[in-house]
Amino acid sequence: MVKDAIHEGLTAVEEQLRHIVNSDVDLLTDAGLHIITSGGKRLRPQLGILAYLAVGGQNLMEVVPMAAAVEMVHTATLVHDDINDHSLTRRGKITVHAKWGRTFALLAGDYLFTKVYELMAPYGPDYNVIMADACIKLVEGETLQAAAAKAGVMDRETYKTIISRKTASLFEAAARMGAMLGGGDEKSIEALAAYAYSLGLTFQIVDDILDIVGDPEEMGKPAGLDLAQNRGVMMAQNGGHSEVADADVAVAELPDDPIARMMAQLRESGAVEIARLQAEETGARARAALAELPDSEVRDEMLELIELVLERNR
Amino acid sequence: MVKDAIHEGLTAVEEQLRHIVNSDVDLLTDAGLHIITSGGKRLRPQLGILAYLAVGGQNLMEVVPMAAAVEMVHTATLVHDDINDHSLTRRGKITVHAKWGRTFALLAGDYLFTKVYELMAPYGPDYNVIMADACIKLVEGETLQAAAAKAGVMDRETYKTIISRKTASLFEAAARMGAMLGGGDEKSIEALAAYAYSLGLTFQIVDDILDIVGDPEEMGKPAGLDLAQNRGVMMAQNGGHSEVADADVAVAELPDDPIARMMAQLRESGAVEIARLQAEETGARARAALAELPDSEVRDEMLELIELVLERNR
Repeated sequence: MVKDAIHEGLTAVEEQLRHIVNSDVDLLTDAGLHIITSGGKRLRPQLGILAYLAVGGQNLMEVVPMAAAVEMVHTATLVHDDINDHSLTRRGKITVHAKWGRTFALLAGDYLFTKVYELMAPYGPDYNVIMADACIKLVEGETLQAAAAKAGVMDRETYKTIISRKTASLFEAAARMGAMLGGGDEKSIEALAAYAYSLGLTFQIVDDILDIVGDPEEMGKPAGLDLAQNRGVMMAQNGGHSEVADADVAVAELPDDPIARMMAQLRESGAVEIARLQAEETGARARAALAELPDSEVRDEMLELIELVLERNR
Repeated sequence: MVKDAIHEGLTAVEEQLRHIVNSDVDLLTDAGLHIITSGGKRLRPQLGILAYLAVGGQNLMEVVPMAAAVEMVHTATLVHDDINDHSLTRRGKITVHAKWGRTFALLAGDYLFTKVYELMAPYGPDYNVIMADACIKLVEGETLQAAAAKAGVMDRETYKTIISRKTASLFEAAARMGAMLGGGDEKSIEALAAYAYSLGLTFQIVDDILDIVGDPEEMGKPAGLDLAQNRGVMMAQNGGHSEVADADVAVAELPDDPIARMMAQLRESGAVEIARLQAEETGARARAALAELPDSEVRDEMLELIELVLERNR
């Protein structure tokens, strides 16, 4: 029954996303639909819906525009990320940037941001302050990431700050707003926000691991892409510096291609294993946050989601 | 006395703009301050303040964050425009794009958009719906402009749609929200919105004329820049197609440089003169809208602003 409600909510989110990008400027509709229909995991809207249901929210349509808005924030940043990363494919499809060119991709990303604003406007100050704050943190996180990539250095503290701001903050906001909309009490709201925040950290760490060890066919994008963008230094922090990793592996075993070589080094250095343990730890924090809530079918779904995030391979 | 109030409001807007871009991510603070302190005309916040005062608003601090927000929308789009136009200077200063590179300019523009959201969040649904709508129109207008530039064709109707959405809509939103915040009645709100909308059209037409005939030293950017970006077709619509303009001018008189040549053609074709008349017409519409309001010192200031926009040379 809870599964039905989640499904109903997510279906309504899909409709809302497809509807909201409509414009009489065809290019914006086309580019918007292109990225929206490319099959994201919809984790952020799902968190909004789960939190809403967890506190006893009864009218899903209250939470749907907000859930669509958090997915739209994520979608807008993907379009801009692909410009900066010169990415040609995303989720197995050509990127907006590759299909329409840089100028239109930049405008399409801006357009999707304005749609976040349109979706959120009716919710009033309390919600818009939370959403604005999450958006600010997200851009700050991406800027820190780009700066670290450019400098070619990334310590553990910086990595934590980056994934906290660029990923976990929006996860947290989705759950916090969902719980508020559902009429949750202060304790429940904070527990659900903490759960989503830790789940966001877990998700991002696993995502960074998959970039190193994932199967390109299952991922829908080339492995080592983040590494090629010099973002693999994120992982390298776990094994010290890449020079250290270098020394750990016999040179004769390494492939010639520099990206394949760096990936092999990271696999061998123990960095991936350490990252894996960090993901298990943040996953455990997410589980602990849920212990604050009474036992329920929705809570079981949220526990299950932690396992799915930890076990995913694409 | 009204001049004092306007000055007080605009000073508070400056402070708000400088304060709001603060981040612990230094690059975002630096890039934000760089563009904010590069000396814009602050027309949009001025319209918000004027409309607020025109309907008898008494507490300027009510309108300041909104006025700062409309300027921030404009500022964010400038940063992204400069990426798409490969512009090196803006208002006589190096662009964010030229100084920090494309990746950080894209993120800095996104950051400024999130600050619009932060500034507006406390105002509640009525205001945020207006602002979201203006932001959507702005991006649509820019997309239509980029599409027309790419296609190399621009008819009069398309030109009108573009300047309406990319410029006049935000002018209108600033005045509408200012009048609402000041407690204006329906008739006053609509009159002030109509005034600002027509002023926005006037401003943009004059801006496009100045790109063709303006003095580069006074403009703080190279003349013919929009032309170089193939946006001069906007003006060409007034003289028919550029082929037509071509036939009107003796070839021997034309310079070799293609941009200088196209500028000369536009000057000679009568396109600039027609655009000038269109600006006078939209200026007259702005004047007519103000006739709906009782005589006042604020109204005189708004009438004066129309003349300043029509007479500006940079």
